[in-house]
Parts: sequence; structure tokens; C-alpha cells
Amino acid sequence: MKRNILILTIITLLLVAACSLVPQQPEGPAPASSGGQASSGGEAAAPAGSGLSADAAAIAQARGLSPADVTAALKTFMPSGKHDDYVLFASGGHSGQIFAIGVPSMRLLKTIAVFTPEPWQGWGFGAGNEVLDEGDVNGKQIRWADTHHPGLSETAGDYDGQFIFINDKANARVGVVDLRDFETKQIVKNPVAVMDHGGTFVTPNTEYVVEGGQYSAPLGWDYAPLSEYNEKYRGHVTFWKFDREKGRIDKTQSFAIELPPYWQDLCDAGKLASDGWVFCNSLNTERATGGVEKGNPPFEAGASQNDTDYLHIFNWKKAEEVFKAGKFDMIKDFPVISIKTAVEEGILYLAPEPKSPHGVDVTPDGKFMTVAGKLDPHVTIYSFEKIQKAIAAKKWDTDDYGIPVLPLDDVKEAQVELGLGPLHTVYDNQGYGYTSLFLDSAVARWSLGGDFADKHPEEPWTLVSKIPVQYNIGHIAAAEGDTVSPDGNYVVALNKWAIDRFQNVGPLLPQNFQLIDIANTGDNMQVIYDMPIGMGEPHYAQMIKADKLKPWEVYPEIGWDPESQSVSPNAVKPGEEKVVRNGKNVEVFMTVVRSHYTPEHVEIEQGDHVIWHLTNIERAYDATHGFSIPAYNINLSLEPGEHQTVEFDADVPGVFSYYCTEFCSALHLEMTGYFLVKPSGSQASVE
Amino acid sequence: MKRNILILTIITLLLVAACSLVPQQPEGPAPASSGGQASSGGEAAAPAGSGLSADAAAIAQARGLSPADVTAALKTFMPSGKHDDYVLFASGGHSGQIFAIGVPSMRLLKTIAVFTPEPWQGWGFGAGNEVLDEGDVNGKQIRWADTHHPGLSETAGDYDGQFIFINDKANARVGVVDLRDFETKQIVKNPVAVMDHGGTFVTPNTEYVVEGGQYSAPLGWDYAPLSEYNEKYRGHVTFWKFDREKGRIDKTQSFAIELPPYWQDLCDAGKLASDGWVFCNSLNTERATGGVEKGNPPFEAGASQNDTDYLHIFNWKKAEEVFKAGKFDMIKDFPVISIKTAVEEGILYLAPEPKSPHGVDVTPDGKFMTVAGKLDPHVTIYSFEKIQKAIAAKKWDTDDYGIPVLPLDDVKEAQVELGLGPLHTVYDNQGYGYTSLFLDSAVARWSLGGDFADKHPEEPWTLVSKIPVQYNIGHIAAAEGDTVSPDGNYVVALNKWAIDRFQNVGPLLPQNFQLIDIANTGDNMQVIYDMPIGMGEPHYAQMIKADKLKPWEVYPEIGWDPESQSVSPNAVKPGEEKVVRNGKNVEVFMTVVRSHYTPEHVEIEQGDHVIWHLTNIERAYDATHGFSIPAYNINLSLEPGEHQTVEFDADVPGVFSYYCTEFCSALHLEMTGYFLVKPSGSQASVE
Repeated sequence: MKRNILILTIITLLLVAACSLVPQQPEGPAPASSGGQASSGGEAAAPAGSGLSADAAAIAQARGLSPADVTAALKTFMPSGKHDDYVLFASGGHSGQIFAIGVPSMRLLKTIAVFTPEPWQGWGFGAGNEVLDEGDVNGKQIRWADTHHPGLSETAGDYDGQFIFINDKANARVGVVDLRDFETKQIVKNPVAVMDHGGTFVTPNTEYVVEGGQYSAPLGWDYAPLSEYNEKYRGHVTFWKFDREKGRIDKTQSFAIELPPYWQDLCDAGKLASDGWVFCNSLNTERATGGVEKGNPPFEAGASQNDTDYLHIFNWKKAEEVFKAGKFDMIKDFPVISIKTAVEEGILYLAPEPKSPHGVDVTPDGKFMTVAGKLDPHVTIYSFEKIQKAIAAKKWDTDDYGIPVLPLDDVKEAQVELGLGPLHTVYDNQGYGYTSLFLDSAVARWSLGGDFADKHPEEPWTLVSKIPVQYNIGHIAAAEGDTVSPDGNYVVALNKWAIDRFQNVGPLLPQNFQLIDIANTGDNMQVIYDMPIGMGEPHYAQMIKADKLKPWEVYPEIGWDPESQSVSPNAVKPGEEKVVRNGKNVEVFMTVVRSHYTPEHVEIEQGDHVIWHLTNIERAYDATHGFSIPAYNINLSLEPGEHQTVEFDADVPGVFSYYCTEFCSALHLEMTGYFLVKPSGSQASVE
Repeated sequence: MKRNILILTIITLLLVAACSLVPQQPEGPAPASSGGQASSGGEAAAPAGSGLSADAAAIAQARGLSPADVTAALKTFMPSGKHDDYVLFASGGHSGQIFAIGVPSMRLLKTIAVFTPEPWQGWGFGAGNEVLDEGDVNGKQIRWADTHHPGLSETAGDYDGQFIFINDKANARVGVVDLRDFETKQIVKNPVAVMDHGGTFVTPNTEYVVEGGQYSAPLGWDYAPLSEYNEKYRGHVTFWKFDREKGRIDKTQSFAIELPPYWQDLCDAGKLASDGWVFCNSLNTERATGGVEKGNPPFEAGASQNDTDYLHIFNWKKAEEVFKAGKFDMIKDFPVISIKTAVEEGILYLAPEPKSPHGVDVTPDGKFMTVAGKLDPHVTIYSFEKIQKAIAAKKWDTDDYGIPVLPLDDVKEAQVELGLGPLHTVYDNQGYGYTSLFLDSAVARWSLGGDFADKHPEEPWTLVSKIPVQYNIGHIAAAEGDTVSPDGNYVVALNKWAIDRFQNVGPLLPQNFQLIDIANTGDNMQVIYDMPIGMGEPHYAQMIKADKLKPWEVYPEIGWDPESQSVSPNAVKPGEEKVVRNGKNVEVFMTVVRSHYTPEHVEIEQGDHVIWHLTNIERAYDATHGFSIPAYNINLSLEPGEHQTVEFDADVPGVFSYYCTEFCSALHLEMTGYFLVKPSGSQASVE
């Protein structure tokens, strides 16, 4: 035993020594001199920032780098240990997750597990199961999502770095991620809608998270045949009330607005001048229902017949009043303001928009709304002031559902011809809009009018330049681009096709992002980085200044439960570990630290019900431990201070080594213990 | 109707035009001038390779780049459209997947779904379910893995780019990935072992995929108390026979060898001089069983008492003979050669190895085996020739299980003192070994002896230089480093801790890879790239020349079933689509193309059983379509030519829009159809 203690002491010293060897650098971007690690190589030592290396020209020559390539390399390379300036939060598309990517280096910093089980985070394998279960649909486990539009929380129209929201198009769900620990805290299933698309978008103080519809269906998951499409199928927009204090959507204060069976597509909240309003574009106002096999036009043709669709214009502050006044119907226990009420109360207006548009984007000052019709070569800019005048003038026709349609000429500020397949628009700090052109595979820069006209030398509302991207750009994101104060600097093109751009890795190709330097005005955009996206298909992204994010380095206290964001009553300190049996229920209270679990033996009988509490008692930054139990589909990731509980029936007998799945120390392989499940009826002795 | 046809024609023309706009570049690295896209920016136009840009020094100055940073940037930046030189295949650790990463750009090209459902690939959501089910354990779905060591298939000891294998430590499973389409074709569950670690490693012609054990347990998933550890607990090494023609492991020709309850750790196959042999290190030859809560030493101490553990030396060609001669026991219907038989037949030998080693790595010529003991500052090099002499001399002691232990002094070629916590070793083309030093957080370069002594100027078996990495390096990978002909050029450090190296994204930190330029000899290694790994914890990686990979661009024929790698009998051509009802069974035969499904309506009744066949009839590179059904947890990714079948009970009534989850064209949003499930007993009409 003495020998054991001696060895343990030596090992402990070794580990402590190793730990203290790790230099702790200050948070935030490191000073330039921290790039010095790299200079341990063959370069002549030179002070940081002193210029090019002696062999720079030779390397560029040898690798066939053009001068533009050299510029791009130097603009995007992050020296070892330096931090990126921005974090791009991209939806993971059908991966169901969110990707956090550093800009300008375009390096994936983290996949945030939201709707899809993610074992390396423990998500769905012992942790987060209750959150995932919230997203079940009709009692059925749905364990993926088609995430579309991440929405960062805002304060006064600016990203505040506190939360991010994301919708699931396939099942009309919304996830809430707390950016203190980058973990999903809530999934809400829309009780009214089967599917969504136009989410998530926040109002300027994150009062509401907006989730719009897409493919129409009877509200409340009802069944109706397609012959009753006009009468029984409906669109919707849902306003989820966000309780910032609790970090949760408050379902009891949320409501939807019934809409005609157009395909509501994307939304944007008004801000500053237009605060209190929300705008959503739509397509298939033709109300085509497909059926090519019956001789009907296919959706792609049927939904593209009309020259214009409808921009939906909502007064959400008015809608909130109407909701609070109780003027709604209940559908599946969820309040829905009817079309009739929305019209009567002045909540809802329409305006024509050309043609099959895909997105509406409010300018930073809130005065204009840009709509791009993908089958029309223009962007159409609407004036909020003109919309208000048209509403006041009450000079309108109505659609088939009695909704006022404001005349296009009365609300239109301008149209700018950009090219083929315009989709989405973002803004910079120099008075430009940037629109993705899907069919052209290009990004168009164009000049804004109004108060922005002073910021740039060009005529207002004119195309300034285009830059090719490769290939088939969908969405586009700009630095702080959805806020009242965009940064400029960078635009990211979210391209859909890669074709031959990257090494072939099989018939399923990566999507790709291209980083565009927009710091120079006029005709001087430059693609400076190509990032393959080999882990899903991002639809939209938002880019926040990195220094607005203030995540925890370790959980605030030992025993922290990330679901409740407070210390768990089941957390234990060293010395308090125990196994408690109560009939067939066995409760394990375990501590976790480099490099052992306590206890190291858990001995039970087949058929026992196990509740296993684990507390990572580490306080060191990055001292994460895993915990897996073979044969039981269980894996946890326990960050420093974190507490988790897993619960299961011990239905498989045998001998199972639970062990640490996160390489934590030189003695990581020794971080294990025996879970012995004695077969029921067995005569074998249990120690 | 005429108007519809006109519109359809216009749209078709638009799409065709868009498609033809996409430049088709030749496969493989593009010429340097293809970087010209980037030069549409503000740089003075200059011929490719003509040198640095005019503003290069100014950018470096503004961004605080040191000369070494500039060198690193220029060595790693891949111009737009150019292809990386190598592909690094990294295990995804507890993500359960494999990551394919381009080198030197260190960009993630693809996550390959293996053990964990991956919705964006359809994996586990309609596709691959049968493969995943093969990995079930005792009838329980296991939907994650702790993947450790990817093994590329080899021909004559060289990577051939055809297959990659990967093991699951948590559940002793092996996955087989076909590199024609980068999809997993098979998962085998080890019937003998609960867990593994030392897999996967291939013999020089991929005759066998080797899977070694780790934590001991009774073979065959039996139960036995820890008091019977020495008698009833066992280690193992399993030889999975690979049928290259079928692209599958042949379980009927596979076998295991029973081993003492040491923790077998990592293995490597002999090659050239040592072809026919396999080497595995081990730890915890102390046979500690933990139980700190009972006053026993914890595993970390108990397993670290002895100064040496045992290198396991296997004659696998002999073992194959013995297996074919039927000299084995059956455990859970799987052939196991007993320790006794292995000793009697000359299959198994041991040799002491210092201390708690983690890995054994055969030199490219097959003549030496390097073992690093993580609690010993040396690497110990064994000579295959000396091992053979010692075996022939039959001068040995035996361990407690009667296995010959060859004297260390008789088989040792050299020891090289490197530093604290040496773990793994890889080799280059210049006669150097590179060993990861976990506690030092460094990579040591040291000179080989034997025939390698002529390749470098240093004394054989000496430490040449060290380079710091940040932090806590585990495995290490080199270009073609596990083959008979390593390339040199690059080493990748697989670091476990990131701490402050990247922008903080919450308490769960990314792992990180550092790319080290080893092209220069002597003291001139340089870290040239830091890659955060925000999607799992890779354990090991192998790096192959990109041009050895020959994946399909599209599936060979329309209707291709990736599971059978042949055309599915259920594939249909345009015009052959149909819905066939047979009692409660409804079979859908659907085609998928830009931008519609045929049929667009599928109308059934609640309680029907649905078998849905989909054929992507595209032949264009990258023309992938998705297919999701809301509420049914179904999503497919259909690559050009691919056929898939999903099968489910229609237990949720309602109206569901199936739609394309992969942005495929300007009319992608219109690629949808109605799945109408009429409630059972409903009087509503079904059209």
C-alpha cells in the first residue's frame, strides 16, 4: 500500500507539473509577439510585424501563388494563438446544428448541438435528452432538423452576444442556445404549424423570435384534402415571446397570426424608423398544389405563373396588443389571431413584390426594405414612410382573403437591375447593399439612397460592381450585417455547389463559403478564402464581433447543471461519493477529476434501475472529461464544474468498463472503472 | 395549360443556361492561373507566380504578422479552386465519424458518417439504417462510437486509396468505408469483446484488419466478479479477414487470439522484413482492478507500479494456419485461439517494454519497432532480427500465463531519451522518427539507425530537435507515414488541449491540430497552421497523397444502390413512376430531378405501411437532392444517380410536404410534394 501511495504521489506531481507548464495567456486577441511560436522554425528571428520573410517570394513562386493569392493569404492567416476578429454563426442546414466559425480565418471553432444528437458533446446520449424530447412531434422522436436561419439576440437593434436562436424547417421547431456555454437550452415545437421556413428573426430588443411559415397545410396538424386548399390550408407567422431573464421562450405569452395559403418565406424585423413592424416575403401566391403526375403543372411552374407575389407587412406591436386583449382563437391550445381580426385591427397588409422572391432585408436605418425576386433581375426597394402613407390613405384593393394590398407604385422607392436570380441582401457601413445572384453565381454591390447617399460616391440605387463566386450562391452574410450598425469589412457568400473546387471526396460534395473582402469601396471586392463545408448545408449565417461574446471558461461553480444554469442538488464533493440502493433503484453519486472516477466499482444486478450523478470537480480551463458506458448508448462530456445525471435500466448483464472519452492527461487511459451487472438469477457472487 | 407549358419551358431554359454557365474544370489541381478569380479584386494584375503583391508588406505590418507567420501563410493558403496535396483521414473520436481534411490548407472536406446518424447525409434517417443496425449490441441500438484509429487499406505496404477502416473503442466494433463514394458499407460487432482500443491496423496487403483489446473482461460478454480477474478476465486481439473484392469483412474467415488480462493498447503490422508479424503494446500488466473507494490504489496508480509492461509479438501467418487447421475454441460462435495454443504453436511472444507504453510503430523498412513508454522519457527500439534470434534461441522466462518473455536486452536495438510523456512515433523519408511528447507538449525529431543512418547527417538513434506544440499532444501523423515509403513534408500534431488558443466558444473547447513543416532537415521544423477541431476528438489520423484517391464524381449508373454497389431493381426511369397499393402496403416509385419529384402527391391512409423508392436521375456533378418527410424523422441525401428506399408505418395523420433539403436550383423551394395521410376512420375524401 505504501508503494501505491508513493506512486500516486509521483504521478500527481507529474500531472501538476505538466499542468503548470501550460502557459495561461490573457483572454482576447494575443499580442502579435505570441506568433513567436511559429518562429521557432527556420526563419531568421525578426521582430513581429517587421515585414515579409526572406523566403516569401520564393515560396509564392514555388506554390504558384499569384499576387492576389498572396494578398488573400496574408489577410486571412491567423498566427498560432491569435484570435479571429469575428465569429460567424451558420445554420447547419440538414445537420440540425449551428456552426461557429472564426473570421477571417474561416476555421470551424465548434459545432453547437441543437436538434441532432451529438455524442462528443454528450448531447442525446445522457445529456440534453429532456431538451431533445421537448422537440418530439406527436410523441415521435425527431432527431434531426433542417436548420435554416440563425438569429442572434439583439439589444437596441445590435447583436448583444447573449443568445442565438435557430429554426427547423422540417418540423416547425425553434431552438434556443445560451452563448454563455454555447449549449441548447430549449426546443419549442410549433403546435399550429407542421413546418416553417421564415425563422428565426428577432425584434430589436429580442422581445419576440419570429417564425414564419412556408408550405401551407391545415393549421393545428389537421387533415384536409388538396381540393379544400383555398378554404382549409393556411400559412402563419408565429411570434415567440422571449424571456431574457430565464433564457427561455415563454410559450404562454406567444401567439401566431393566421395567413392565406401563400408560402411565406423569409422575414425581417423593422428597426429604428420601422421598429414595431415585421416584413415577410412570400411565393406561390398562385396557390399551386402540384400534381404533375395528374397532368397539373409541377410546383416549379405552377408557383411561378404570376409576375408578382405578396410582401406581408405586420404591425407586431399592434398584434401584441390584440393578443393581450384576448382577440384570438385557440388552435391546439395555442392562440392564433385570425386573418379577419388581423385585417380589422390593422395588423396585416400586403404589397406586390416581383417575382417569386426569396427574402426581405431591412436597411440599417430601418427606412427601406429590399426584396429580391429570384425570377426578376431587380431588387425592389420599399420605403417604410411610403408604406405608412399608403396605409393612412386607405387606397387599396384586397386579395381573396380580404387583406389590403398596397399599390406597388405607392410604396416602391426604387428598383435596381442586378442580374439573374437575385436572392438575399446584406448591408455594410459604407452605404452599400450586397445581393446574392444565384443564377449569375455572383455578388452584386449596389448603392443605397436615402440618408446613405452621402456615404458613397455613386448615384443612389445603382449597381456598382459584381464579383463572381463559385458556385450558386444562396444566402449571404455580412459583419454585424443585420444590425443597426453594420461593420463592413467582410461578406461571406454561402455557395451551394462546389463541383471541382476541392479535392473530390465522393459524390456527396461539400457546400462552400467564400470570404469576400469588402473593405475597399467601388470596384474593389476580393475573394480571399474558400472554405469547404463538409458537415451540412448552411442556409444563413450571422457574423458578430468576437469581443461581444463573453462565454464562460469553466462553469461558475462546481456541480453546475447546464439545463437549470444553477448548482445541482445532486452534486457531490470529494469524500461524499456513494452508491445508494433503494429496492431496485440504485443511485450513484460520483466525482470526476484527472485521472479517476470515484467510485471505481459500481456493482448491481440485472434489472436494477440506475440513476447516475456525475460531478466534474475540475476548475482548470479545458479540463473536460468524458464518461461512457459500453453497451448502454451513453456518453457524456463533462466540462469543468459540470454536473450531469444519466438514468437507465440495467437490462444488459456483463462487465463494462466505464471510461473517459476525452483525452485528459497522461493517465487518461487509466481513467476507468468497472460497472458490473450481475445476471438476474445468477449464483455468481457480487463483491 | 398552354401558359403552364410556356412557363415550364422558360424555367427549363433558365436552369439549363445556369448550368452551362458553371465552368467545368479538369479534375486534379487546377493550373496556377485559376487563382485569377481572386485577382478580380484590387491587386494590380500580374501573371501567376510572378511574386508578391504590392501591398503584401503593408498587410503583414497591419495585421502584425511576423516573418515566420508570413512564411506559414504562404505555405498553407490554397488559392480558390486549387486542390490540396494530401487528405488527412482523422478519427472523429467520440463523434463516431471520420474527418477528411485537406493538407496543407487544413480544411475539413467532409465528415464521413460511420457509427453516428448524420442527417445531412441521410445516414440513419432512411439511408444506412441496415448498416447501423449491424452494430447493435445485444439488440440495443448503439448510435455513437468512440472512434480511435483509422486504417487506410494497403497494397504491398502502401496506401492504395480504396478503403478505410475505423474502430469503436466503446463497443468493440469496426466500420468499413468504401472510398469510391466515401460511405460506410459495413459495421461488425466483435462477438468476443465488449470493448477494444488497438484498432484498426491493416496487414501489408489488407489481408486482415487488426483489432486489439484494452480493458479486460470475460470473453464473450460473460459476467464474472473482479475477484476472478486473473482467471476469468481476458484480453484479445482479433484478426478480421478482409474480402477486397466484396469490399466487406468476411466474418467466417476471421478469428481472435485469447490474451492475458493485460490492457492491450495499440498495434502495428510488420512489413517488408517483418511481414507476417503484428506487434501490440500493453499496459496494466500489473492487473490492477481499481476500487479507490475501497482503499485500493486507483487505476492510475495501480496500473503504473511496474517498470515494464509487455510488448506482444504475434506471428499472424502462423495464426492463420492454426485457424485454418481448426485449432481454436468457439466463444459466442466466434473462433478464438487460446493462449495455450498460441504459445504451443509459436504464435505469441512477449518482451518487456518500459513503462505504461502507448503505441508501437514499425519503421518503414519493417526492421525496427519503436515503443514509447509514457512514464519513461525514452523511446525503446526493438530489432526484428534480434526478436527472431531470441525466438530461435528459446532462452526465455514465461509470464503467469505461460507466454515466453524474450529478454529486453536480447531484442532491444537502442533507446533514445526524448523528454516527458512520449507516446507515438511516425516516420519521414529522411531517416527521422517523430515522437509526440504529451507532458512536454512537444514533437521530438530523432535519427534512425540501421539502413536509415545514411539518410541524415546525425548519429543514429539520437535526439535531433524538438518543437513545442500547444497543448498536450496525443497522436501524431505524417504524410504516408504508416507506409513502406513515407513522403516527409508534413507532420500533424493532434493536440488535446486548446485552452486560450482560439476564440472562446464556451467551456467545451475544441481539440486542435497543428501542421508542422518537416521538409527541412535538422533543427528546422516549423508550425505552419493551427486548426481547431470543433466537431469531436480525433485520436489518430493517416495522411494519403490526394492523387491516390479516385472517388466517383457521380454514381456509375442511374438507380445505383450504395449498399449493394449495384443498380437497384426498384429504380425507375422518368415515365415509370407509380404508387402501388397492395392491401395496407403502399409502394411508391419516385424520380427526383431538378426541380421536382414525380409524383407530387402521395395520398394514403393512417395505418398504411409505406415503402418509398427514390431514384435521383441526375447525371450532373454535384446535383444532389434531399428528401425529407416532416414528422417521420426521415431525411435522405440522394447523390446523382443514387437510389434509396425508406420504409415506415404511416402512424401520424395529417398533411406533410416532402421537400428537397439540399439547395439544388433557383426553383429549389418549389421542389416539394404533398404526403397526405388521411386519419383512419375519417370521412374526409381522399382524391
